[in-house]
Amino acid sequence: PNTNMLWELRSPSFIRAVFAEFLATMVFVFFGVGSALSWSEDPLNILQVSLSFGFTIATMVQGVGHISGAHLNPAVTLAFLFGSHISLLRALLYIAAQVLGGMAGAAVLYGVTPPSVRGDLAINKVQPGVAPGHALVVEMILTFQLILCIFATTDDRRTGCLGSPSLSIGLSVTLGHLFGIPFTGTSMNPARSFGPAVVVRKFSYHWIFWVGPIVGAIVAALLYNFILFPRKRNFLESIAILKGTLYPEDEDEPNSCRNQSVDLTSVTSSKFCVKAS
Amino acid sequence: PNTNMLWELRSPSFIRAVFAEFLATMVFVFFGVGSALSWSEDPLNILQVSLSFGFTIATMVQGVGHISGAHLNPAVTLAFLFGSHISLLRALLYIAAQVLGGMAGAAVLYGVTPPSVRGDLAINKVQPGVAPGHALVVEMILTFQLILCIFATTDDRRTGCLGSPSLSIGLSVTLGHLFGIPFTGTSMNPARSFGPAVVVRKFSYHWIFWVGPIVGAIVAALLYNFILFPRKRNFLESIAILKGTLYPEDEDEPNSCRNQSVDLTSVTSSKFCVKAS
Amino acid sequence: PNTNMLWELRSPSFIRAVFAEFLATMVFVFFGVGSALSWSEDPLNILQVSLSFGFTIATMVQGVGHISGAHLNPAVTLAFLFGSHISLLRALLYIAAQVLGGMAGAAVLYGVTPPSVRGDLAINKVQPGVAPGHALVVEMILTFQLILCIFATTDDRRTGCLGSPSLSIGLSVTLGHLFGIPFTGTSMNPARSFGPAVVVRKFSYHWIFWVGPIVGAIVAALLYNFILFPRKRNFLESIAILKGTLYPEDEDEPNSCRNQSVDLTSVTSSKFCVKAS
Amino acid sequence: PNTNMLWELRSPSFIRAVFAEFLATMVFVFFGVGSALSWSEDPLNILQVSLSFGFTIATMVQGVGHISGAHLNPAVTLAFLFGSHISLLRALLYIAAQVLGGMAGAAVLYGVTPPSVRGDLAINKVQPGVAPGHALVVEMILTFQLILCIFATTDDRRTGCLGSPSLSIGLSVTLGHLFGIPFTGTSMNPARSFGPAVVVRKFSYHWIFWVGPIVGAIVAALLYNFILFPRKRNFLESIAILKGTLYPEDEDEPNSCRNQSVDLTSVTSSKFCVKAS
Repeated sequence: PNTNMLWELRSPSFIRAVFAEFLATMVFVFFGVGSALSWSEDPLNILQVSLSFGFTIATMVQGVGHISGAHLNPAVTLAFLFGSHISLLRALLYIAAQVLGGMAGAAVLYGVTPPSVRGDLAINKVQPGVAPGHALVVEMILTFQLILCIFATTDDRRTGCLGSPSLSIGLSVTLGHLFGIPFTGTSMNPARSFGPAVVVRKFSYHWIFWVGPIVGAIVAALLYNFILFPRKRNFLESIAILKGTLYPEDEDEPNSCRNQSVDLTSVTSSKFCVKAS
Repeated sequence: PNTNMLWELRSPSFIRAVFAEFLATMVFVFFGVGSALSWSEDPLNILQVSLSFGFTIATMVQGVGHISGAHLNPAVTLAFLFGSHISLLRALLYIAAQVLGGMAGAAVLYGVTPPSVRGDLAINKVQPGVAPGHALVVEMILTFQLILCIFATTDDRRTGCLGSPSLSIGLSVTLGHLFGIPFTGTSMNPARSFGPAVVVRKFSYHWIFWVGPIVGAIVAALLYNFILFPRKRNFLESIAILKGTLYPEDEDEPNSCRNQSVDLTSVTSSKFCVKAS
Repeated sequence: PNTNMLWELRSPSFIRAVFAEFLATMVFVFFGVGSALSWSEDPLNILQVSLSFGFTIATMVQGVGHISGAHLNPAVTLAFLFGSHISLLRALLYIAAQVLGGMAGAAVLYGVTPPSVRGDLAINKVQPGVAPGHALVVEMILTFQLILCIFATTDDRRTGCLGSPSLSIGLSVTLGHLFGIPFTGTSMNPARSFGPAVVVRKFSYHWIFWVGPIVGAIVAALLYNFILFPRKRNFLESIAILKGTLYPEDEDEPNSCRNQSVDLTSVTSSKFCVKAS
Repeated sequence: PNTNMLWELRSPSFIRAVFAEFLATMVFVFFGVGSALSWSEDPLNILQVSLSFGFTIATMVQGVGHISGAHLNPAVTLAFLFGSHISLLRALLYIAAQVLGGMAGAAVLYGVTPPSVRGDLAINKVQPGVAPGHALVVEMILTFQLILCIFATTDDRRTGCLGSPSLSIGLSVTLGHLFGIPFTGTSMNPARSFGPAVVVRKFSYHWIFWVGPIVGAIVAALLYNFILFPRKRNFLESIAILKGTLYPEDEDEPNSCRNQSVDLTSVTSSKFCVKAS
């Protein structure tokens, strides 16, 4: 029956969403990391790099937000999992797609870039003078503000005043880079850190770029969904969402900015849609 | 009865709003001030710093605007108080939360930043060659345009054409920095000035960064609400708003961008909602 | 009777609109021109100046767009006049308010700025190497794209997809500066050129900054309203709009971004509202 | 009868759309290429040029998006053709108008610019150190992300959460320049490459700037419309759209951002509108 946790694998829109995560993360790493390569002797223009990362996210959120939700980031996906918004299966497949997409984007970038420009492919690393512990805290805070922005921007209980979700999230990513580049090069996203590191095979303090973003993301998810703007969901509902047998339904709310990729044929008009079994 | 001026303290959404002001002001000072620190010998990139402050505000308005209204600034809170939009109790607790948040953000920033980079933590000060009186006038005008933008953007009588409130307000903050950095480093916000000043214990002409923003904010509040786009509120209504026993209600207007954090259970369908006593 | 061309003078909202034009143009010139002053030996940062002008316009359009339409520019006002959107009386008073506002903004800026920074207060002038005729053509084209953007953005026949009107118009102003600063310093706005020129008493080729923007604006107004996206208005309607006895009414269209400052009490539900006489 | 493939030529709105494509592409090339000319010895400011191109597109999409759809780019028009959104006749005339507009814009720019500044009019070319094959791949990827963004932004099946279509598309163009300028100067648009090349008569590897964008655009069109977010259109419908006898109708969906220039008098309330024959 549909209560099988793997039922989503039979949904074409679910498969498309996973593919969209792969594709968009590939594009994200290609453009973002590519903008951080040094073509001249001049020092890196932090503003330029920060806007590049932000505009890439804005463009990809615009491009696949209605298909997959445009997470493009394992930390974001884990935040949605901990905030009871997606199933465990979706989270696992999204993260796999993101990691593979990040590697593919870094590899294509490596391929098209002149050798003199490649350098270490702008991998994230603790910058000189920065303590690793401080780098970890900074990555947590960078990701915290991003996740807070994402939850608030895609909250289906808000019906107006949101402006452009893609731009808001993109500028939050830009903000993280404006602050964080001198500390760590700014990760906020393990897939962005892992892809280039694999390609150039350098993993200095690489764990920071998994632990920092993920911890920051989960703290933000719990804080937003359970303290700042709590939802009235009971434990059974949360478990059912995790298993994929219940999911937040927002098809009838045209102003909602939540992922709209759920299978259209299985949506009913109730606020929560329990899969018939 | 509910006419007690402290009734709001029993509202969970009110407490959450105060906490959101603390948290978001902490994030704002951390990112904004952090972007103004000097990591190299190069002179400060004014555009980069200005966009950092603006994008931080945009992200935090997006993140907690529906929870607390995202003032993040005692001058903004006083403007809403003088414009008859919030109660005196809310104003006092918001300001306390903002000042504490600013100190916390500056302290965390101080903690994670290498000593060689900290400098004076980018405190606001009258720049060389600028007369203190001119600095005061500049701070007034900087804050004036911000408050005008905020009131117009969050006016519940406007129902369309507002674009992105968070971005509009963020770019107004950026504008203030683009102009004001060579004069005062740009405050427009006593909490932003006070936090770093406490941490590094430097208070040169510090009063300018309280008096300037607050005077500019109150002038803008009175001008907007009573001359440029006057509301038809009588004196008793204004007093009742101040006491917290009457408050502007906008729950039924999905396009309104006013703070939507008022307790949902106490809202009726009348335009103004008098608390039952 | 109301057919008197001066009836609008008895409308409080009309008076407020004229005052808003004065105030917002003052703020615009103060911030825009102020951002173009040289505080250091470094050459002007064109991007920074361009964004400053654009963000000022965006902030003021957000701030007073619902009060006066936020023209802030005689060329814009003439475009609305030639496009049959406002009365002759409104046009004349707006232009007077804008010119006075520009002078006031320049004067305040002169007052608060250190003498070493004032220079020629960033007046518009034909830059070295540029032929005056080319400068004239450039000013026409700069203004043409701005007016095209404004008409399209505020067209009450469009009901969606407009994003943020204030930001769109602001970025159009930024665009004009990015291109035009090396040619003329970019005017696109006689009030912006006239204010600083009066304060520092320098009028080199000053006529270019009236003729260029105004010709470009009128060409764009005629092209948009009569060729690209023609309205079905007859000659008598156009004359009546000019006289102020008939005006476009859009109160019932919440998505419209046209100036909403017309006196609320005199609006009826018909598409065009003839003043009762 | 109307089944004649040339029936659209009798539609005034169709003619206006073609003219709008010419005009807007002229403005686009004038401003975009103009921003990439070197007025000083300093190296090109990549961020400034990238934002100029993006803001020009944003302004023109805002300005003529409701008239022609604001393609301004043969690759975009071909993407809409391959995605079954426009007729073959419209595609051919749009492309002709875009190519002529690009030449006109480059010619006017050449005329008003001082000879010392003209250089090679910022033509697209493979930059030193970049392999032509890599340049081709880069142009494909640059255009791929743009087309993905455009299709997602103008998808009439999305009814909210789109923010500002003009800005989203503009920032996607900016993104392409931030990444691509060191590789090829960034084309993404054959009309942008062809206009200046004709004026200065330099065609080094010029084919790359036709093949790259067009291939990238078609791949994105097929991927978006048939895999990522497939439409339920049968083969006959696609053929009819191609012939201009059937076209997507979205007049009744005020939030849709698809080209709204179809002749208003020929629209019915059915989802697809077959021209009476």
